[in-house]
Amino acid sequence: MMTHQAKTLVQNLLAGDRRALARLITLIENRAPGAAEALALLYPHTGRAYLVGITGAPGTGKSTVVNALTRELRARGQTVGIVAVDPTSPFSGGAVLGDRIRMRDLAGDKGVFIRSMASRGSLGGLAAATGDVVRVLDAAGFDTVLIETVGAGQSEVDIARTAYTTIVIDAPGMGDDVQAIKAGILEIADILVVNKTDRPGAQNAVRALRAMLDTGHRLRTIHHHGQINPQRGGEPSEPEYDFWQVPIIETVATEHNGLDSLVDAIDQHRAHLRESGVIQDRERQRIEAELADRLREALLNRLIAERSPGAIEAMIRRIQHREIDLGSAVRELLDG
Amino acid sequence: MMTHQAKTLVQNLLAGDRRALARLITLIENRAPGAAEALALLYPHTGRAYLVGITGAPGTGKSTVVNALTRELRARGQTVGIVAVDPTSPFSGGAVLGDRIRMRDLAGDKGVFIRSMASRGSLGGLAAATGDVVRVLDAAGFDTVLIETVGAGQSEVDIARTAYTTIVIDAPGMGDDVQAIKAGILEIADILVVNKTDRPGAQNAVRALRAMLDTGHRLRTIHHHGQINPQRGGEPSEPEYDFWQVPIIETVATEHNGLDSLVDAIDQHRAHLRESGVIQDRERQRIEAELADRLREALLNRLIAERSPGAIEAMIRRIQHREIDLGSAVRELLDG
Repeated sequence: MMTHQAKTLVQNLLAGDRRALARLITLIENRAPGAAEALALLYPHTGRAYLVGITGAPGTGKSTVVNALTRELRARGQTVGIVAVDPTSPFSGGAVLGDRIRMRDLAGDKGVFIRSMASRGSLGGLAAATGDVVRVLDAAGFDTVLIETVGAGQSEVDIARTAYTTIVIDAPGMGDDVQAIKAGILEIADILVVNKTDRPGAQNAVRALRAMLDTGHRLRTIHHHGQINPQRGGEPSEPEYDFWQVPIIETVATEHNGLDSLVDAIDQHRAHLRESGVIQDRERQRIEAELADRLREALLNRLIAERSPGAIEAMIRRIQHREIDLGSAVRELLDG
Repeated sequence: MMTHQAKTLVQNLLAGDRRALARLITLIENRAPGAAEALALLYPHTGRAYLVGITGAPGTGKSTVVNALTRELRARGQTVGIVAVDPTSPFSGGAVLGDRIRMRDLAGDKGVFIRSMASRGSLGGLAAATGDVVRVLDAAGFDTVLIETVGAGQSEVDIARTAYTTIVIDAPGMGDDVQAIKAGILEIADILVVNKTDRPGAQNAVRALRAMLDTGHRLRTIHHHGQINPQRGGEPSEPEYDFWQVPIIETVATEHNGLDSLVDAIDQHRAHLRESGVIQDRERQRIEAELADRLREALLNRLIAERSPGAIEAMIRRIQHREIDLGSAVRELLDG
């Protein structure tokens, strides 16, 4: 893509053209020529959307909650962009299937745009691409961008970095308390949702979550990774004292119950972040982490380009034959 | 730690000293002085343990399966090292709690060593430390090392890189088919376990998994990330054709049912990998990915050391103020 085409696409995006939006996202996902330029052009127009992360284990009804939340936000006059990240299906089909099911519910609404993203062999690449797609939706003028990820794991930590408000969804019958702690993602929640509260065990689930919130989690210590600040190095950053009391919202998303409370909680958390000034810290942390990720990738690519292909191949063979360990290999390649 | 102390620790480890084992692991987790040297010293003694990855969503009874599998391996005369990775609890308590529960079952058996690892703010750091701890257990002479991770996400892809045989655990009532696909980790399974088959819906779960295996997954295309081979660049590598037919093993781990079949399946997969020569490919891919991860980290640390602290701070502020986008910032820092 030539320069003026990237420019035209971005201009059309800013003018509200939905085809330009879809084309830009595809461009970015494919890392096609012009993608970097388009991102640079639209970046000054970002920073207006409110970013909400939503995560929950399979079986909690997460996608249904996202759809119901979208309808509630639409009823309140907001436009909604949805990025559904599926890092667990690096292979095929998952994202597309998810899209198709969603589309049934939200099809035909011009105030909603949904994009599912599956990893294509590189989670680092996926995280970077997700950040970029969120920026495109932001520049396109969506009031709220929902970033949905599946399951438990690194994807949640990435959400916590990307979103201003992070919602963690639980449901009755998802396993015992130890497993709830193991799932661990409680720690990143600004808002907890217990979905399917029409099912047996719902009040037990709510009570268990409340007990966990009450014991030791009032003063949350936000650790984050991917830091680039040399003073702090690899150490966890200073605790960020955050007196937000995590609410537990009960929903039956299939019946559209509880969604008004959920949107109210999002609004309250947003107001809290703004009043406490934490919103700037969160944005800064996100930028710091994204910059670190991209620098790592760019530096490795440069090293590979600088060394002869045979040098790295030979090193891998030496490691495999136990002639050198990984740490020594890294030092040798850096010095070489 | 001085040179001769690292040396003594490694010598004691190789002589079977369990305190040396525990001390070395702590050394490595803390990235204490002497850790790099100890790893270099013990690396030539690695490569003998058989590495088995085990993963499954919360609620599948994964920890119970790991304990039962360990008892079965012990009954067959094998020693077992267990590394329980918990990337979802970067904060506190999770790993420790998990350990305590396990210890009840396997305490007092000298042929078993268990280590739980929680992320300390950096998943990259955790993945590197896990690889190192697995190498320590390998050098210590454990016949089998079980690497257990929670949930769905990047951790599973990392397991697939680290282990020769990857076991994915499912259970009845874990959500509908779409969610099973979303969980997606099926794709990395060499062996599928349906645990809790004494519960309602077990045969449906088995049938659903079998149907998914039958449609299109026989010829598995293994993508992997973190590639460093410059010829392949960021593209997925060539497909690795693997005619292993993924078995579905039914277990009731709490009753110790089905564990004999599971260990037999592991043995068969191991024989398959050896006969097909795929075992070398897997080890090579693991080394390639680990080397790439470590180079990325080392290169970023070097860049940070080379630039003035203020330069990176200033860049983060410029990005936050929308004066420059991330891609342009990376190019500027690399050239600077």
